[in-house]
Amino acid sequence: MFGVTVRDHMMIAHSLRGDVFGPAQRLHGATYVVDATFRRAELDGDNIVVDIGLAARELGGIPAGLSYRNLDDEPAFAGTNTTTEVLARVIADRLAERVHAGALGEGARELAEIAVTLHESHIAWASYERAL
Amino acid sequence: MFGVTVRDHMMIAHSLRGDVFGPAQRLHGATYVVDATFRRAELDGDNIVVDIGLAARELGGIPAGLSYRNLDDEPAFAGTNTTTEVLARVIADRLAERVHAGALGEGARELAEIAVTLHESHIAWASYERAL
Amino acid sequence: MFGVTVRDHMMIAHSLRGDVFGPAQRLHGATYVVDATFRRAELDGDNIVVDIGLAARELGGIPAGLSYRNLDDEPAFAGTNTTTEVLARVIADRLAERVHAGALGEGARELAEIAVTLHESHIAWASYERAL
Amino acid sequence: MFGVTVRDHMMIAHSLRGDVFGPAQRLHGATYVVDATFRRAELDGDNIVVDIGLAARELGGIPAGLSYRNLDDEPAFAGTNTTTEVLARVIADRLAERVHAGALGEGARELAEIAVTLHESHIAWASYERAL
Amino acid sequence: MFGVTVRDHMMIAHSLRGDVFGPAQRLHGATYVVDATFRRAELDGDNIVVDIGLAARELGGIPAGLSYRNLDDEPAFAGTNTTTEVLARVIADRLAERVHAGALGEGARELAEIAVTLHESHIAWASYERAL
Amino acid sequence: MFGVTVRDHMMIAHSLRGDVFGPAQRLHGATYVVDATFRRAELDGDNIVVDIGLAARELGGIPAGLSYRNLDDEPAFAGTNTTTEVLARVIADRLAERVHAGALGEGARELAEIAVTLHESHIAWASYERAL
Repeated sequence: MFGVTVRDHMMIAHSLRGDVFGPAQRLHGATYVVDATFRRAELDGDNIVVDIGLAARELGGIPAGLSYRNLDDEPAFAGTNTTTEVLARVIADRLAERVHAGALGEGARELAEIAVTLHESHIAWASYERAL
Repeated sequence: MFGVTVRDHMMIAHSLRGDVFGPAQRLHGATYVVDATFRRAELDGDNIVVDIGLAARELGGIPAGLSYRNLDDEPAFAGTNTTTEVLARVIADRLAERVHAGALGEGARELAEIAVTLHESHIAWASYERAL
Repeated sequence: MFGVTVRDHMMIAHSLRGDVFGPAQRLHGATYVVDATFRRAELDGDNIVVDIGLAARELGGIPAGLSYRNLDDEPAFAGTNTTTEVLARVIADRLAERVHAGALGEGARELAEIAVTLHESHIAWASYERAL
Repeated sequence: MFGVTVRDHMMIAHSLRGDVFGPAQRLHGATYVVDATFRRAELDGDNIVVDIGLAARELGGIPAGLSYRNLDDEPAFAGTNTTTEVLARVIADRLAERVHAGALGEGARELAEIAVTLHESHIAWASYERAL
Repeated sequence: MFGVTVRDHMMIAHSLRGDVFGPAQRLHGATYVVDATFRRAELDGDNIVVDIGLAARELGGIPAGLSYRNLDDEPAFAGTNTTTEVLARVIADRLAERVHAGALGEGARELAEIAVTLHESHIAWASYERAL
Repeated sequence: MFGVTVRDHMMIAHSLRGDVFGPAQRLHGATYVVDATFRRAELDGDNIVVDIGLAARELGGIPAGLSYRNLDDEPAFAGTNTTTEVLARVIADRLAERVHAGALGEGARELAEIAVTLHESHIAWASYERAL
């Protein structure tokens, strides 16, 4: 199995609902350093997993659409606890949509999996992986 | 599959028995930067893999019980080569016990896997993963 | 010259005023990984720059007082653009007060400088250094 | 499952053929920080995955044989696009040969998998994993 | 003193002349992760060292002009050993020119120093700092 | 001012004397990731600060002489608290001796400063810098 990973980041405000979150129930914020990994069993005719330029552009577009925002005010997240885990899934799912739409190139349609990791600090991170 | 990782560290002395260890047969030491990853297929009702505060507290408790010690003198390791691999398994197993005892919350009982990585330097690390 | 650095972090929401900040004028947030360095010309009688346990505790106390908050609502920052640079100075100044108050031990009164670096992402950080 | 990883690096020149590579079609270069991971289900009699000294020596030998070279001039790569993905596979395959030849010790014959990751910058890396 | 750092990278081929360079006399390449630090004694009216967006854009422009090239063929470097040290100075000097030309904003004219660090691997880096 | 840094590491056991060290008074250990920086105002005729191959060899020789040892048993440290700060100075001083002995090349005699940083974990490090 081959994989290629590209890194970007986003800076958001949000609050979390539920006693389990303790002080993170207050409005606060986070920088998420976002790693998106694309995997497939065999390389394409150019010997690549995916066009890394397109991958970086598409990954960049997703955090850019979330960054510098208060997620509590985003209709897309109404009623949703925007935990690091959820945001990893949102980014993976949006990337999957972009793959299926052809935005990462025709060869990318043979990708097998996407994994997204969000680093919220030097001591904590979360990830989500899914098939394509 | 979702995952959440928390990081802590411990500083121990030990020696290793066996020609394969070369100079590491002498009494020496290591800082282990410890990453513990918890995985499950679906998030709980709070949209999390595990209460990250409890995860950090429980992970911290295990290295704290080993740290600032000479493992050669610890009864728990009598007759055992305390390699990085073994210590990764010890920490994963102790975390698994804590999960089963409910110390990471009721929702944590649905965790599927634990993976522990111990970084012994900037150029070497070892890991162990197991089902829960 | 000797130096000792300890690392902690904080997660805050804020907005910035001024065209120069572009989209960061909106309410957003950041994880700041905070490095505090203490410097002095000679070591004390214990061969240390500062009691690293006290340094970590005092550094931890300052981000903890800012973390999980919307800095726009903090009276201490009313009318102040809470840029990364400003927050580095705030933390350095608060640490300096703690040093002068004896909270880092009597030996710490001979510290010469404090430098604080705030990492806001994997590609940007700011720092402030001052004499004691 | 247990894993042990060792890190080394190599510095090479090359060019890539195909429109997908954009400016990387020109002769340029890269530092690849190389992580090689060895995995097996159970530890050997010394409580290790592999002799880490041998693993580091063998990993070091492979980048050393590629480093400080223009891969466009290497007969081994004639007609091959030496993408990061391909180089990860080359290194994994060469390590596998060394394992099978006994160069990592007799116990290493029970290794189950090798994974190789090549970091080409702070924002992009590729990996390849295979059974042994 | 305040400082702000932004990070970018470039991927180049080159060779070095002189016995001291050993195998690096052959054509090879490197990824340089480039950190550019801007320093000044006091913040400007927006509470910043420099407009970080402009700093990132200008830093990005310089590696982009060098990246994906064989420096042996660049007229700007004819007869020059393009060591990591030299490239750090080239980037610092070009950034200084951009500051003096007003490309980093009017406030940037009060910057006191620029420091540039080029990381050529996980175990080696070089830097150059100069007054403005 | 130019600087070049090389990185290596060592793994030692030791104990520290004095109430200030708390649990670190017990025999324990540490991995120290060692960064040695060499600085000078102008480059030599090869456009370098120092022969990086010699710098890496000499830096490697010093940790190698300390590594895989219990520093409590080393005559060189009898009666000395081997804190991270002290070990940074020891390594800087030994490197300075090597420079003066010509082991880093004739050009290295014009080096102005050496700085050594020892990382003892992901959240703590110490440094020492001195003139040559």
